[in-house]
Amino acid sequence: MPDSSIKKHNAFRWRADRDSFEPVPEALAVEEPLEIRLGGRRFTLTMRTPGHDRELAAGFLLAEGFINSRDELGEVRAVTGRKGEPEPNAIDVILRVPADGLRERLKRNFTISSSCGVCGKTSIESIQRRIAPLGEGIRISAQAILQLPRLMRESQQVFSTTGGLHAAAIFRQGQGGEAELVVLREDVGRHNAVDKAIGYALINGWIPLSTYVMAVSGRLSFEIVQKAAAAGIPILAAVSAPSSLAVELADEIGMTLAGFVRDAGFNLYTHPQRVIT
Amino acid sequence: MPDSSIKKHNAFRWRADRDSFEPVPEALAVEEPLEIRLGGRRFTLTMRTPGHDRELAAGFLLAEGFINSRDELGEVRAVTGRKGEPEPNAIDVILRVPADGLRERLKRNFTISSSCGVCGKTSIESIQRRIAPLGEGIRISAQAILQLPRLMRESQQVFSTTGGLHAAAIFRQGQGGEAELVVLREDVGRHNAVDKAIGYALINGWIPLSTYVMAVSGRLSFEIVQKAAAAGIPILAAVSAPSSLAVELADEIGMTLAGFVRDAGFNLYTHPQRVIT
Repeated sequence: MPDSSIKKHNAFRWRADRDSFEPVPEALAVEEPLEIRLGGRRFTLTMRTPGHDRELAAGFLLAEGFINSRDELGEVRAVTGRKGEPEPNAIDVILRVPADGLRERLKRNFTISSSCGVCGKTSIESIQRRIAPLGEGIRISAQAILQLPRLMRESQQVFSTTGGLHAAAIFRQGQGGEAELVVLREDVGRHNAVDKAIGYALINGWIPLSTYVMAVSGRLSFEIVQKAAAAGIPILAAVSAPSSLAVELADEIGMTLAGFVRDAGFNLYTHPQRVIT
Repeated sequence: MPDSSIKKHNAFRWRADRDSFEPVPEALAVEEPLEIRLGGRRFTLTMRTPGHDRELAAGFLLAEGFINSRDELGEVRAVTGRKGEPEPNAIDVILRVPADGLRERLKRNFTISSSCGVCGKTSIESIQRRIAPLGEGIRISAQAILQLPRLMRESQQVFSTTGGLHAAAIFRQGQGGEAELVVLREDVGRHNAVDKAIGYALINGWIPLSTYVMAVSGRLSFEIVQKAAAAGIPILAAVSAPSSLAVELADEIGMTLAGFVRDAGFNLYTHPQRVIT
């Protein structure tokens, strides 16, 4: 793979057997937006790992029914900015489909909107919403973070049966500093599980969740950080790896991001001051 | 969890130590579309596990910046059809946001389209594209299917470093009946990895992929089956679980679906005739 798919990041590793942090160089999978244009006009946006962008655009157009064969795919070309500089996160496709036919396909396949928080947008600017920086929020012990996956597993009923669901949970801090699960939601879509848990909190009048912690099964992408930030959550933990853009957004808005939370410890990627040993 | 989140399915389990199939009752995580309406008008569509739909709608609207507080969320109500029958896959939200403000938020957040194949659509009908039933395609040995994850892992370079990427690969059948990897793509988004692999095949003039096999890391959702079907792939395998709708679509269009492909064996969910022991 080209270097563009990995980004170095200086994280902190907390080891349960030592109860201390040590710096650890981490390699993050790169997540960047790609604007796909049709004949120069903005068409769709996807969060992707850079590389093989021509294939991505071609495969997307086939898989979504905008083209049906190699013949209908014309040129796929790089985009340059107004000053002639390359735009690495945009690509332009010229289709060989009659204009009438294309209009019909567009109408049939696309209307408005999205629910995953990113892929309904057509321009890179549109994903850069203004998110208010998070306040100080709470501080929590490293030991309490380590317990989050176990607390989620104990509360999960469907995953063990089907192996097919993502989970998102919101925790508050108990009297003794331990994490107490207040809501867990499961869904085939990770973003839905997050929306459901946040929706529960909203309906109960808890927003902003500035003294709560969220944990998710699996990986952390940009969209999950953005959703948690919109709800005011200061600490977000995941069982698996964060993407580069998830870390960058968390860093920018002041969110504490923990990843690879497993038996032996976890990694802290941003704002470690909220985690105490 | 309510029963609506699990669906029973009669699958076949192939065990490597016996080289034979036996029927096995499987529990699938339910995946169904949900139309979220705003004041009766179609707004967005998401593939979700039924249950907690009010929370999903509320949390989505908050996380995406359409509402900022509990006060702005009005009534969230069930939808009934023309004859008064309940529509379990639609929900209607009345916002307490001034019309001007809402228009501005809509404009800022949403334009057209999507790249994940589902969430850019607003109506359930729009995801039910006509996909041509797959032809007979090829037959492949169970032993060859068992090897797919190993062949992918050997070809994956980024995952082991970052733990953050999904993979999709296309295989052809070698002279001895074994699977030969012809392209593997990795991405933070599973649907992107699939689009990239299919795009590679398209650019090389291999479409339809009627004698090829696709394998993906992780889970199988409706959208992945739809993308593979659009490329004409007759056999699709995953390391983890398929959703209910993935199995239903594969069944309908004649695709062979294998899941939980791991050391000891795998499950076949649909059209087992293409897999020989």
